[in-house]
Amino acid sequence: MTTKNDQPVLITYDWVPDFPRGFVRDLRVRWLFEEMGQPYRVETVPIGPKSAEHLAMQPFGQVPMVSTRGRVWFESGAIVMSLSAGHPTLLPESRRAEITEWVFAALNSVEMSSLPWIITAASQEAPQIFGPAPAPEVIERIAQRMSSKLARLETVLKGCDWLAGSFTIADLLMADVLRLVADKGGLDGFPALQAYVARATARPAFQKAHADQMAHWRQADAARATAVA
Amino acid sequence: MTTKNDQPVLITYDWVPDFPRGFVRDLRVRWLFEEMGQPYRVETVPIGPKSAEHLAMQPFGQVPMVSTRGRVWFESGAIVMSLSAGHPTLLPESRRAEITEWVFAALNSVEMSSLPWIITAASQEAPQIFGPAPAPEVIERIAQRMSSKLARLETVLKGCDWLAGSFTIADLLMADVLRLVADKGGLDGFPALQAYVARATARPAFQKAHADQMAHWRQADAARATAVA
Repeated sequence: MTTKNDQPVLITYDWVPDFPRGFVRDLRVRWLFEEMGQPYRVETVPIGPKSAEHLAMQPFGQVPMVSTRGRVWFESGAIVMSLSAGHPTLLPESRRAEITEWVFAALNSVEMSSLPWIITAASQEAPQIFGPAPAPEVIERIAQRMSSKLARLETVLKGCDWLAGSFTIADLLMADVLRLVADKGGLDGFPALQAYVARATARPAFQKAHADQMAHWRQADAARATAVA
Repeated sequence: MTTKNDQPVLITYDWVPDFPRGFVRDLRVRWLFEEMGQPYRVETVPIGPKSAEHLAMQPFGQVPMVSTRGRVWFESGAIVMSLSAGHPTLLPESRRAEITEWVFAALNSVEMSSLPWIITAASQEAPQIFGPAPAPEVIERIAQRMSSKLARLETVLKGCDWLAGSFTIADLLMADVLRLVADKGGLDGFPALQAYVARATARPAFQKAHADQMAHWRQADAARATAVA
């Protein structure tokens, strides 16, 4: 994809606490690069306080970013779409319209209904981190909003393995959104969605990406321990 | 853009109650078509119950959809990106990477933090429609999550009129996300964002699109009144 001199650099946090490990959004980029057979290096920015350098690259102080092709790219959805453009299986030009629809379905229609539910689930587990949990009737409404979206998607994925004919970036992003829901038990009534997440995360590229992210945090722990010693 | 025979058809609801009028997401497509000078027709699907035809076109039973170029397109973000691809000012190929980043910033990073706040504001006004409002300390957390994103965007838009050099689809989508926040008073501490929304919505293309959406609902009221009479 690039010459060795332009090997992409994935930029992520220097450390995170335990709870988001395996779910930090650099996973989407790691997964993409593994699917593409694209080697990459990793560099880091402090998780906090946000550095001026970080905010210059990413206006919201989020991760991931990717430095390649002479610029720094931000927003995981944009990075995945832009760096896979024209790839023969992940984002072929002939199916761009359909794949783009499902990319936005994942990152807007579905994630906009799932993230409030996940924050609610997290705040029930750890209110000191995520803030107080809402009252049961508010939680019920948040769960209903997510379930109405998931029920529609369940119908779609009962009839096919992947959203756009074969595995594409639409599945990479949708499965990444859904596995966070699955992790909190939110797919219990949706067997087709559970099977879909299992199918996506069984891919060697996901497995390698996930293992590499987890190894990154372990190295970060070791570096912290050394710094303190 | 197309021959007369392939004039695009915008598909939206046959009627909506007062509160979402002016904000139904077909506005994004109407605005795009006006910016492009692209004539279009409007057809409708019932707001409820969702028809099988509607769900076959739009898996989540949402609007808008667009029928053109031999297929039906769904997800407003995807429709706007796909139908403007290569447009010399709205999505020029030379700035595709940058514009794509801001499109996802609008529809993922910002809207994912603003929509929960908007639902909360709406549920304080009309709990019978939007469900019970959360407790004050939960509302405060939701407001904080949105404000942290808006504060970053305020910094960006203090320094420029538009997100990617000149007005593009990134501004069309970001301004549409923000004007809903503005409508509920959520931009009060953010003068650059208020000026940005004012600048975007002053464009003749937005004004025409908005007027046409409002006229559509008035016609829908009239059709209902006739049907009842």
